[in-house]
Amino acid sequence: MNNNSCGPSRIAGCQFTLFPMSEKFVDIILGAIEEVDTSKVWKDTDDVSTCVRGRMGHVFDVTKAIFLHAAKTGEHVAMSGTFSIGCPGDTEADSYMDESDQLLNEEKSQAISQQAGCKFSLYPMGREDYMDAIYEQIDLSKHRGVEVSHAHYATRLDGDVKDIFEAMHQSFDSVQEKVSHVTMTFTISANSPSNQS
Amino acid sequence: MNNNSCGPSRIAGCQFTLFPMSEKFVDIILGAIEEVDTSKVWKDTDDVSTCVRGRMGHVFDVTKAIFLHAAKTGEHVAMSGTFSIGCPGDTEADSYMDESDQLLNEEKSQAISQQAGCKFSLYPMGREDYMDAIYEQIDLSKHRGVEVSHAHYATRLDGDVKDIFEAMHQSFDSVQEKVSHVTMTFTISANSPSNQS
Ligand SMILES: [Ca+2]
Repeated sequence: MNNNSCGPSRIAGCQFTLFPMSEKFVDIILGAIEEVDTSKVWKDTDDVSTCVRGRMGHVFDVTKAIFLHAAKTGEHVAMSGTFSIGCPGDTEADSYMDESDQLLNEEKSQAISQQAGCKFSLYPMGREDYMDAIYEQIDLSKHRGVEVSHAHYATRLDGDVKDIFEAMHQSFDSVQEKVSHVTMTFTISANSPSNQS
Repeated sequence: MNNNSCGPSRIAGCQFTLFPMSEKFVDIILGAIEEVDTSKVWKDTDDVSTCVRGRMGHVFDVTKAIFLHAAKTGEHVAMSGTFSIGCPGDTEADSYMDESDQLLNEEKSQAISQQAGCKFSLYPMGREDYMDAIYEQIDLSKHRGVEVSHAHYATRLDGDVKDIFEAMHQSFDSVQEKVSHVTMTFTISANSPSNQS
């Protein structure tokens, strides 16, 4: 939805906000960002949200790591965001598409064990049969070690944060192989006093 | 994305989460909900998000009012959510579609003056020319008393919370007149220490 010229592009992006429900929200946000290596993604932050863009794997790696490092403080922390790929308004102008496959935050993320609840929705754009693409991926997501349930307008995932992001990543990836422009919204919540499971 | 049968429906809905960046987040959330009359919408809340469904006007009335009553505490408060209408998985089964036009929270909302920043994105579903629908509405939104700017994957609105929701409501409404299934994501933030304008 920006003013760049249109054209095919496989740059992925995520616009997200981290919400620590704590007076220490600034410290928690800055602490999480400090622990995460964002050098393989384009990044821009303002008072409403953060946007990271680059290769899909790095976009998920960075987003997941920021949430994990905030959640491990034990505070009630949530994150809402939208992943997208193939947006006709996006471009590959930035050099970040040349980065190698190696995920910079995977090792530190793997060391953090953190339960969470998440709701996500996949939106394949520009296709009349988009609901078929959605239903196909929902079937797939039942096999990934997270508890899957259905809510209005969304699919709920409960489990370890890393497994939740893996399920979202695989769902997003499988739909984007068939549909050029895909967006995926999510809200993930950890350490909620109303969900101590 | 639930398992209900498909079919045309003009029930609108919003799945949102309120995020007070404060230890008092529970009190702020419950206090806001207590001040808002939700009797004209179907409502369901869990530890991740709240879903309200019903006629479009009431869905916006309730969502806006909950954010306003939380933000007037002066704490840094944000809300992320997704409005939708015409979702093939949604149904008009609930009786809330028979409610009258009168908005139950408009008077109290009008009394609250609160600045905020917001990013939103409109997604007309199932149409190959969806980008045209998006660009048309972006042009419109320049005339509604809010400052409009463009961000990656989103349009930014700055101004009074009521004007921001009015701009989003009008944009959503104008697109849903042309496209059956429309979703609109948003994140709105007030009293941020990094945006004291
Ligand atoms: Ca405190």
